[in-house]
Amino acid sequence: MVIRITEKDNVAIVTSESGLSPGSKLDHGCTVKELVPLGHKVALSKISKGEAVIRYGVPIGYAKYTIDKGEWVNEKKLTLPAPPDLGQLPKPSNDEYSMEPITGYTFEGYRNKNGSVGTRNILAIVTSVQCVAGLAGHLTKKIKKELLPKYPNVDNVVAINHTYGCGVALNTPLAEIPIRTLQNILKNPNFGNEVMILGLGCEKLRPEQLINELDDSTGLRRILYMQDQAFDGFAGIVKGAMNMAEDHLSRLDQRNRETCPASELVVGMQCGGSDGLSGITGNPVAGYTADLIVRAGGSVMFSEVTEVRDAVHLLTPRTVNDQVYHALIEEMKWYDDYLEAGKTDRSANPTPGNIKGGLSNVVEKAMGSIAKSGTSPIVDVIPPGKRVKRKGLSFAATPASDFVCGTLQLAAGTNLQVFITGRGTPYGLSMVPVVKMSTNTRLSTRWHDLIDIDAGQVASGEKNIEEMGWELFNYILEVASGNKQVACDKLGLHNDLVLFNPGPIT
Amino acid sequence: MVIRITEKDNVAIVTSESGLSPGSKLDHGCTVKELVPLGHKVALSKISKGEAVIRYGVPIGYAKYTIDKGEWVNEKKLTLPAPPDLGQLPKPSNDEYSMEPITGYTFEGYRNKNGSVGTRNILAIVTSVQCVAGLAGHLTKKIKKELLPKYPNVDNVVAINHTYGCGVALNTPLAEIPIRTLQNILKNPNFGNEVMILGLGCEKLRPEQLINELDDSTGLRRILYMQDQAFDGFAGIVKGAMNMAEDHLSRLDQRNRETCPASELVVGMQCGGSDGLSGITGNPVAGYTADLIVRAGGSVMFSEVTEVRDAVHLLTPRTVNDQVYHALIEEMKWYDDYLEAGKTDRSANPTPGNIKGGLSNVVEKAMGSIAKSGTSPIVDVIPPGKRVKRKGLSFAATPASDFVCGTLQLAAGTNLQVFITGRGTPYGLSMVPVVKMSTNTRLSTRWHDLIDIDAGQVASGEKNIEEMGWELFNYILEVASGNKQVACDKLGLHNDLVLFNPGPIT
Repeated sequence: MVIRITEKDNVAIVTSESGLSPGSKLDHGCTVKELVPLGHKVALSKISKGEAVIRYGVPIGYAKYTIDKGEWVNEKKLTLPAPPDLGQLPKPSNDEYSMEPITGYTFEGYRNKNGSVGTRNILAIVTSVQCVAGLAGHLTKKIKKELLPKYPNVDNVVAINHTYGCGVALNTPLAEIPIRTLQNILKNPNFGNEVMILGLGCEKLRPEQLINELDDSTGLRRILYMQDQAFDGFAGIVKGAMNMAEDHLSRLDQRNRETCPASELVVGMQCGGSDGLSGITGNPVAGYTADLIVRAGGSVMFSEVTEVRDAVHLLTPRTVNDQVYHALIEEMKWYDDYLEAGKTDRSANPTPGNIKGGLSNVVEKAMGSIAKSGTSPIVDVIPPGKRVKRKGLSFAATPASDFVCGTLQLAAGTNLQVFITGRGTPYGLSMVPVVKMSTNTRLSTRWHDLIDIDAGQVASGEKNIEEMGWELFNYILEVASGNKQVACDKLGLHNDLVLFNPGPIT
Repeated sequence: MVIRITEKDNVAIVTSESGLSPGSKLDHGCTVKELVPLGHKVALSKISKGEAVIRYGVPIGYAKYTIDKGEWVNEKKLTLPAPPDLGQLPKPSNDEYSMEPITGYTFEGYRNKNGSVGTRNILAIVTSVQCVAGLAGHLTKKIKKELLPKYPNVDNVVAINHTYGCGVALNTPLAEIPIRTLQNILKNPNFGNEVMILGLGCEKLRPEQLINELDDSTGLRRILYMQDQAFDGFAGIVKGAMNMAEDHLSRLDQRNRETCPASELVVGMQCGGSDGLSGITGNPVAGYTADLIVRAGGSVMFSEVTEVRDAVHLLTPRTVNDQVYHALIEEMKWYDDYLEAGKTDRSANPTPGNIKGGLSNVVEKAMGSIAKSGTSPIVDVIPPGKRVKRKGLSFAATPASDFVCGTLQLAAGTNLQVFITGRGTPYGLSMVPVVKMSTNTRLSTRWHDLIDIDAGQVASGEKNIEEMGWELFNYILEVASGNKQVACDKLGLHNDLVLFNPGPIT
């Protein structure tokens, strides 16, 4: 009915679905004084005013006033500790790296000429500017209806719209983030180099700039300008675009799945709508799976700067060298400055839902958040909008906002995402499959058609983290192979892509 | 074949569709030296190095080197003048206001209880956070198919998605802009107070906050939380939402058009994809129409801070009092600072398309841009996201980005937009009709199914500005009455709403 994470902790987390009633006796010789809801903290001993509240073996805050044994410990009773000092972070530990490799795990993927491997076969239609979003929508519907049935090997046609491209300052150094994000989204392995671009013609961001790193040796026609003088009205524009789409579809249709080692997985780990159980069930399970992917030779990334900031002292010792160590600190510092310039700080997190789910502040949230990184060494730090370069575990620096993080992980080259949620969100992307895992069984029961995997079984003791970690790993291989369809794809629930643009709108 | 705007001008603008050929003789005793394209400038006299290039009677720049009579004057040959000093702007002129009222003009509109008048009858489904965008999309399709046919008086069902709501700092003072924008969009007269909100449940921006200024005296059920524990899975959520939608549709279906005076028009003027003719044809025509709306007692707004900044010295004398004068300057100053904080400035404008269309820099663009404000006194300045308060001409301070400006004009309460374009854009909104006017006949001919009105007829001399201004005014009344469908609605081409969020993503 409660879980205490380390011996040092003076609080335990409630795992009973209906919460702990007053009068309940705990193993720790403690009688519960008031109703403590699922995912929330109960004090296992008296915590005097100013004393640390310990969870995960670390202080997540200090008591505003004395908290009795058996009392509910919530956000109202804690002060927020200072964040770790970026100048004083532990150096890379250089510990012997002793994760045992696992071999023989494969999935059926689409291997691209550049070596990357897709998990889906998708025609991506990218807009260079929001002005042409209406055309992209019109076209996607028409292609799905009239062309897609003729190309059975192609899974989908997806419009990639965004709010960048014009009415923005390209001459600020901050512009490089949204621009490289778009450039790299186009290189996602699921698109097999067959991306086409809808441009207007007068926009600031030139379509040519978006494709300049794609393989165009075969002379693909990729860019359609609406303002092209050759077109007779909207009907002419649509006709031209349909012809271009058919070219790409005919080549995509020749792609076939082949057996690929699990080392070709590029998995993005993300959590959203977290609760007090995220750090006990969902995220540790995801972390175990992350370790398995790394042990299989694959790539994993975790993200969300504001949600690792308060636990970054636990990450720096895991960086593989000084360069990665400094890169990690640099990303934290950039974000501290960015928030300050925007007249806010880390206390803007957590959300009302997080708090309702038992997360008292951003320190507690961060401690749970980093659990999804597992235990591997951190081999690289990827600035926002850049791509994964190394196998193993990378930190992809992104905002914590689900849709912005998802967009940046897509740009980083992920071919599958895992999304862990406690409160529940219908989050999904149309470009890569998103496996959704609940942190509690109450959610997966209620949202039976929206959740793929229930890590709540760890809290109930039905399965342990290792078992659930393997289950998720195997599930990922099945989804990557196209043998299983994730819940959000079955229902057709997909979010918009949202670019991270720290620069101004003009 | 050329138009010289004032006697002071030492350049003229080419109006011939195929441009001016070398050797062409102009009335001004000048022989053209090289091909000068449509919308571009030709020097009518020699302009020595450092001397001003004069268009609209004002210096739009200074010659980088001596420009010969008959030469093409383009962006490469000009330096950018300093912007008007905000501390030295002309005071309100207090001129006698002598615009003659016009009476008897009406349209058939939907009058709301609060006195506002809609031009369409729309069920708006607004999301409180991007997480539920997938549900909004699913629902809109399903309602259109299954419910809308039962309610023939309802024109449409529109999902209002955005990228705000969570993963943002609500505790920065900058947050008030996107929040009040959403609150005010919900009050748009076309939605008749029947807006419904899809929330997730754990988001930062509370759905309750969005509707707190709507009339809920009738006890409407407006908010659906996906995380509501009463729902059994996605199917249950959809069922709940369909029931809620039907409630609203049944009330919307009772709305009827009635004859309303033209003084109930709230027209947003906007231009995008401008060219060298915008300031000669399209925008002056829009300005004439703006004056007619003001003379009929209606409300008009013009916008785009960065595109009026360089002509603000021509606007301050038109402000009706010191308070409006200072408010206008305040908005310019806010934007100067905002751009500077983002490491950029006004030179981020114009776009490559503007330049190709003949606009050499932001000064020339601004001079053309303000023409759409006509000649009326400026009665009010509306900060971004706020609503029109006064009849007459208001300046709604917004970014120049088409889709951001459009979103803010929608929040300001516009019930119809006029969009003037030279290069061509398919811009459209699903919430209010957008009348699209071309600045040149070449565009309206090529885009015959995308452009509603051709102001290019002014350049060819077929019609004058007054005639075209009346034509646009009458067209607006027809569209507002639902008698005419605009091109983008016929084709179903609509942009996303894009909130102006100057604050950080967390």
